[in-house]
Amino acid sequence: MNSPRELAPSLLAGLHECLGERVTTARGVRDHHGKDESYFDPAAPDAVVFVRSTEEVQAVVNLCRLHRTPIIPYGVGSSLEGHVLAVNGGVCLDLSQMNQVLRVGTSDLDATVQAGVTRKQLNEEIRHTGLFFPVDPGADASIGGMASTRASGTNAVRYGTMRENVLSLQVVTADGRIVRTAPRARKSAAGYDLTRLFVGAEGTLGIITEVTVRLHAIPESISAAVCSFSDMAGAVDTVIQTLQSGIPIARSEALCATTMAALNAWNKTTWRERPTLFLEFHGTEQGVIEQAGLVQAIAREHGGEDFQWATRPEDRNRLWSARHEAYFAGLQLRPGSRAVSTDVCVPISRLTECIVATAADIASASMPIPLFGHVGDGNFHLMILVQPDSASDLTEAKALNERLVRRAIDMEGTCTGEHGIGYGKKRWLETEQGEGIHLMRALKRTFDPDNLFNPGKLLDL
Amino acid sequence: MNSPRELAPSLLAGLHECLGERVTTARGVRDHHGKDESYFDPAAPDAVVFVRSTEEVQAVVNLCRLHRTPIIPYGVGSSLEGHVLAVNGGVCLDLSQMNQVLRVGTSDLDATVQAGVTRKQLNEEIRHTGLFFPVDPGADASIGGMASTRASGTNAVRYGTMRENVLSLQVVTADGRIVRTAPRARKSAAGYDLTRLFVGAEGTLGIITEVTVRLHAIPESISAAVCSFSDMAGAVDTVIQTLQSGIPIARSEALCATTMAALNAWNKTTWRERPTLFLEFHGTEQGVIEQAGLVQAIAREHGGEDFQWATRPEDRNRLWSARHEAYFAGLQLRPGSRAVSTDVCVPISRLTECIVATAADIASASMPIPLFGHVGDGNFHLMILVQPDSASDLTEAKALNERLVRRAIDMEGTCTGEHGIGYGKKRWLETEQGEGIHLMRALKRTFDPDNLFNPGKLLDL
Repeated sequence: MNSPRELAPSLLAGLHECLGERVTTARGVRDHHGKDESYFDPAAPDAVVFVRSTEEVQAVVNLCRLHRTPIIPYGVGSSLEGHVLAVNGGVCLDLSQMNQVLRVGTSDLDATVQAGVTRKQLNEEIRHTGLFFPVDPGADASIGGMASTRASGTNAVRYGTMRENVLSLQVVTADGRIVRTAPRARKSAAGYDLTRLFVGAEGTLGIITEVTVRLHAIPESISAAVCSFSDMAGAVDTVIQTLQSGIPIARSEALCATTMAALNAWNKTTWRERPTLFLEFHGTEQGVIEQAGLVQAIAREHGGEDFQWATRPEDRNRLWSARHEAYFAGLQLRPGSRAVSTDVCVPISRLTECIVATAADIASASMPIPLFGHVGDGNFHLMILVQPDSASDLTEAKALNERLVRRAIDMEGTCTGEHGIGYGKKRWLETEQGEGIHLMRALKRTFDPDNLFNPGKLLDL
Repeated sequence: MNSPRELAPSLLAGLHECLGERVTTARGVRDHHGKDESYFDPAAPDAVVFVRSTEEVQAVVNLCRLHRTPIIPYGVGSSLEGHVLAVNGGVCLDLSQMNQVLRVGTSDLDATVQAGVTRKQLNEEIRHTGLFFPVDPGADASIGGMASTRASGTNAVRYGTMRENVLSLQVVTADGRIVRTAPRARKSAAGYDLTRLFVGAEGTLGIITEVTVRLHAIPESISAAVCSFSDMAGAVDTVIQTLQSGIPIARSEALCATTMAALNAWNKTTWRERPTLFLEFHGTEQGVIEQAGLVQAIAREHGGEDFQWATRPEDRNRLWSARHEAYFAGLQLRPGSRAVSTDVCVPISRLTECIVATAADIASASMPIPLFGHVGDGNFHLMILVQPDSASDLTEAKALNERLVRRAIDMEGTCTGEHGIGYGKKRWLETEQGEGIHLMRALKRTFDPDNLFNPGKLLDL
């Protein structure tokens, strides 16, 4: 916990003038906003403000700039990388009350939302249109937060990540400008890609206040399947060959035997406790049947067994709930533990090799470590289960993560496929980027010369 | 033509020292490198250098920086927006000899190429892998040039533009660094998106020397179709409803009656001279039949008639050759003319309205103006056929383009969907971006403080 400090009285007065009661320095609220789903020590902000409009964000930014006070944007606090920690103190800008779906374009297959709208809320509000927003990181994150961390999740293999699904942003810059990064056309060759500059910037270059996202047609037919393998290589090779065949698989998730055991214990289910693929197919009724048949044949070639199909919505929901519960089920393997979540992503040609080498680390670790991930993207997670008060656990977890990240970088991969750099991976970003880190620093200095936007995250100056 | 000038003798000597005979100031070579496919007056560079490696690019950049001399990257000269004009003189950096396909990842569905490799060359070299590179702007452009202009073309509706298909770049920066923008993993949440910063930057922020692109599986089955409509609205609405239905159409090109007449005259064909959709479907054999049937039904609802199918490769090639020849066929409508090509892109919900309003402009114009475009993206082109020596033609063309761009911007669209800003649309970029133009200027100043990389393009400082 950072040492408590106080905002300048004139800043606090200014904030109250703008936002009335929607400014607080209450300990409970500050503490709540100083932690997320990561294992890092919390760091509470000095105040929390609840904004309702882009103009209010602009006013807060202008006040904080005058007082050289950090601003940390906050959505729902589901970050896994300490993005919301107020490591230098300052004002937490809670955007959860900016929760209006502003426009839905049923012909354009897009929607514009305020940054605090969550992905489930958006999908609820557009359900009647026959469209959906596909990016699904598991947590019901805010769409502004998802844009800021370049989030993805289980169906990125088919629908892309936030990089591909954000059309345009409204952003408040450090000098208080309100910028629309791009018009709403589906493609554009007009000038520098400001949109992609802010997607993944983790709130360090500007505050995202509105997001225009692509929507997709809800498929006529959806079918899911589960298939187990004697080893992870069979699962990975099945997915590689599926992609090479051009089969537009919608989800391809692999879960290790430990994860399957955790799910069984948590849900009283009877999955085979072997490396397992969860698959989903989207398309027309015939198309889905055809895709599923092709993939089943490919899986068999790679040792896939025990195909179970889930075509009824309730069966599919049960299956994907299980996948999304992997995190919580995993935690139960070691009561009282927290997870150090790893997030490497490698070219899929190296994925088997990366997982096999990592499995050896897992086998010699002192704690249980479930492994699961998005095979089609080359992205997988370890949940290194540490006791929060155990220094040796944390040391072991960090060393294991370090070896894993080094391995991924050596394989032309990245330390983070979807969680972001945040507070804990800054030095890995340097290793990974090489000379590119100088360009990133130049960007930060240009867009936030006083280092007030989420300082201490993504990179150090 | 800019007034002839000479490079500093010490710069020329330095270039010769690096590149030997691959430096020239010969008039013919300079003139060839000072023009492209645009209607702008040519502007020859003061010298042309032919580089063969990233290190040579770095050496040229370092020399030019010392001598404060502009550098204009050159691929094949197929720009439609004057990107290669040496409006401030300087050294033209011809990358056409950097033409090696460096690596093909058949499991990763990616390839790394030197910037001078053309798209057709790449597709030729990877034909045996069952993969292809989908971005197809018509011209056999260099992949570095396509990345620099954020090119797209006929099948972006299914496969995306260069924005989506570039995984990573190698870039030489103005301070002479060689930067790899991202690792090769299919997705990453690691830091600022340097890749997208250079894609579409038109050579103004750095020189792209290598490009890692996504490849896609060649579909098991491809089928194309042609369908005519009594008006353009029927064609556009067919495509909108197709996309809303989630049918993964691969190409959806609309051509106006004038364009169809031009094609008939050019190729001695007998297409109906009415607004026409050219469509293509990719998938499994069954999937393609199903998609085609669904789209045919949708087209009929919107007045589509005379469906003709092309499933044999030679028939499909004939069809798409016709589409790609629209530009050359159009030019024959007015012998001796050049085309002022427009490139607006609007949300597709506004596309019919935009085309109808534009049709009125076309009807009252003094010259023939074919219209065709990528309906699924909301992007269409006018070929305003001007006599090169006619001032009044050019004035009329500019006024028409101006009205069109204004109309597109008012509809939340852009002045350029795929050709780029280049030399002629800088003021439209300002209009379109509003406050964002300040961020773009800040980017340019940060990455190219001496304004030596393709000066006078994209924006003025």
